[in-house]
Amino acid sequence: MCKSIGVIGGGSWGTALAILLRNKGYKVDMWMRNREQSFEMNSTRENKRFLPNVKLPGNLNVSSDLEKTIYNKDVILLAVPTHGVREVLNNSKNFIGGDQIIVNVAKGIENDSLLRISQIVKEILPQNKYAILSGPSHAEEVAINIPTTVVSASEDMEVAHYIQDLFITPTFRVYTNPDVIGVELGGSLKNIIALGAGISDGLSYGDNTKAALMTRGIFEIAKLGEKLGANPNTFSGLSGIGDLIVTCTSMHSRNRRAGILIGQGKNMEEAIREVGMVVEGIKTTKSAYILGKKYNVSMPITSEIYNVLYENADVKAAVDRLMQRDKKHEMEDVVQ
Amino acid sequence: MCKSIGVIGGGSWGTALAILLRNKGYKVDMWMRNREQSFEMNSTRENKRFLPNVKLPGNLNVSSDLEKTIYNKDVILLAVPTHGVREVLNNSKNFIGGDQIIVNVAKGIENDSLLRISQIVKEILPQNKYAILSGPSHAEEVAINIPTTVVSASEDMEVAHYIQDLFITPTFRVYTNPDVIGVELGGSLKNIIALGAGISDGLSYGDNTKAALMTRGIFEIAKLGEKLGANPNTFSGLSGIGDLIVTCTSMHSRNRRAGILIGQGKNMEEAIREVGMVVEGIKTTKSAYILGKKYNVSMPITSEIYNVLYENADVKAAVDRLMQRDKKHEMEDVVQ
Repeated sequence: MCKSIGVIGGGSWGTALAILLRNKGYKVDMWMRNREQSFEMNSTRENKRFLPNVKLPGNLNVSSDLEKTIYNKDVILLAVPTHGVREVLNNSKNFIGGDQIIVNVAKGIENDSLLRISQIVKEILPQNKYAILSGPSHAEEVAINIPTTVVSASEDMEVAHYIQDLFITPTFRVYTNPDVIGVELGGSLKNIIALGAGISDGLSYGDNTKAALMTRGIFEIAKLGEKLGANPNTFSGLSGIGDLIVTCTSMHSRNRRAGILIGQGKNMEEAIREVGMVVEGIKTTKSAYILGKKYNVSMPITSEIYNVLYENADVKAAVDRLMQRDKKHEMEDVVQ
Repeated sequence: MCKSIGVIGGGSWGTALAILLRNKGYKVDMWMRNREQSFEMNSTRENKRFLPNVKLPGNLNVSSDLEKTIYNKDVILLAVPTHGVREVLNNSKNFIGGDQIIVNVAKGIENDSLLRISQIVKEILPQNKYAILSGPSHAEEVAINIPTTVVSASEDMEVAHYIQDLFITPTFRVYTNPDVIGVELGGSLKNIIALGAGISDGLSYGDNTKAALMTRGIFEIAKLGEKLGANPNTFSGLSGIGDLIVTCTSMHSRNRRAGILIGQGKNMEEAIREVGMVVEGIKTTKSAYILGKKYNVSMPITSEIYNVLYENADVKAAVDRLMQRDKKHEMEDVVQ
């Protein structure tokens, strides 16, 4: 049976996944807000702005008509930034049937509400089944068939397997995981640590320092995740440490780039201005800091990054404080 | 009370730790096999061969007299390669008193016997207390006080804490962990995955591929470790994924460099010849492959690296097989 997918969002990741799905022979329509851009993509067969030099396959239609894109599709792929999810869902909820599966690929926590995207979807579309696809996956590499692995997570394992089958190809390997909370949190909170890794690089610290930040960073994130209902093992998987590794070793990462600028002495506003795009990790740091306080989880790295970003703390002094905390057992609060 | 340490081995890591301990004010003597080199180090105050451009502090004595180095020391620091541990212990056991603590910093599994270093120490010095110090720690960075974190592991937590206190400085943070087996295995087996990461780079695969190999690699190593008595959480810590991250992102790693050559089409012998030094991960791959079979642990990445190294398997076909295995649950065999 030929499945059909409506892709909401015309960024690099939405485009790469639309191409992958279309190349598997499915019927794929893609929506983007900007009408002129959708015309241009349809005629040039390329997403020049977000995924240049990759040809769109035939019969992958791009339009700015949300209803048409969603209509009669088995799966709706949400590929918009976190801050746009609520609006796009509100604009499309009247066209979405209860049997359409929602797959989200954005990574973030909604500001102020502190909601994960599955929670926003449940609020607006309470009857729809939901999965998240996440993992170490630069769109630019997926689009040219570089071997990549991701996780399909859903509370309903039948849905997780359906999405695994939908996306899997010989170079795009999909694992399943029932832990939606852990997969969502890993993808979002890892941006805090990517900021930290950037700060370390900006301070000209070494590979030892960055590896320590990443390892201890994912550890405290897993502790917070556990309090929020996640399986802590998920953070050792593709959507946790895997995604963190890819983010921290790439210059594509805006979070890491912002961190480097801050490590070099810029303040938060200057760094955001210079990167010139949304730096999701900066807002996520505040959310995680608040959540850590609320749930009484010790998050020394997140707290120091928060101090640097929001309290103008000296960045070198913050690293010194991290290095000179009380001596610890490596697995404190996990095994005793 | 002024503690005293005898450092056995004059490589980069032994030298960096001897300097760190001496700078803390302890009495430190260092042994190296080569008499001329020990004379040269004493007079030039530098380990030109293994740790150039770092000054030895005053009163750090280097000698080729094993007995003198060990005599009356509180702690004996074993900093020789894995294949030299048994010999150096046999040569020194008559000078070692039962109350001297042995701290090992080598990472490996003895060939043929498949013994971890703690097991070799227990065989030769059954009455001595033992700790291992491991984690993401390039000697070159530690020697210039780049912030670094490691783990002190001992079955006897009093010893683990004693060693933590011995080494800790404002830029060298030491955590404790009771899981000697896990810390020893993590440091050794991570070299297999470093080879794999190198192979991926040599094949010009992307960041996605390398992050996947690292994440899924540490996962299968943790499964083997658990069967061998380790706490699987240890592999998510500094001596596991932390050390793997530092190894896979550094060109200092001989294992990664050998992997790159193999990915580019060289065979095992050619790669070893070109690297020109011991590539510990090549032997470790064989040991882990045998252990995986023996303990019935599915280790797809280790097996494919074994096939490439020892069975002349085509390296691209090996990656294809990894990508196209049966579809999996991410946490198979860990949580169900």
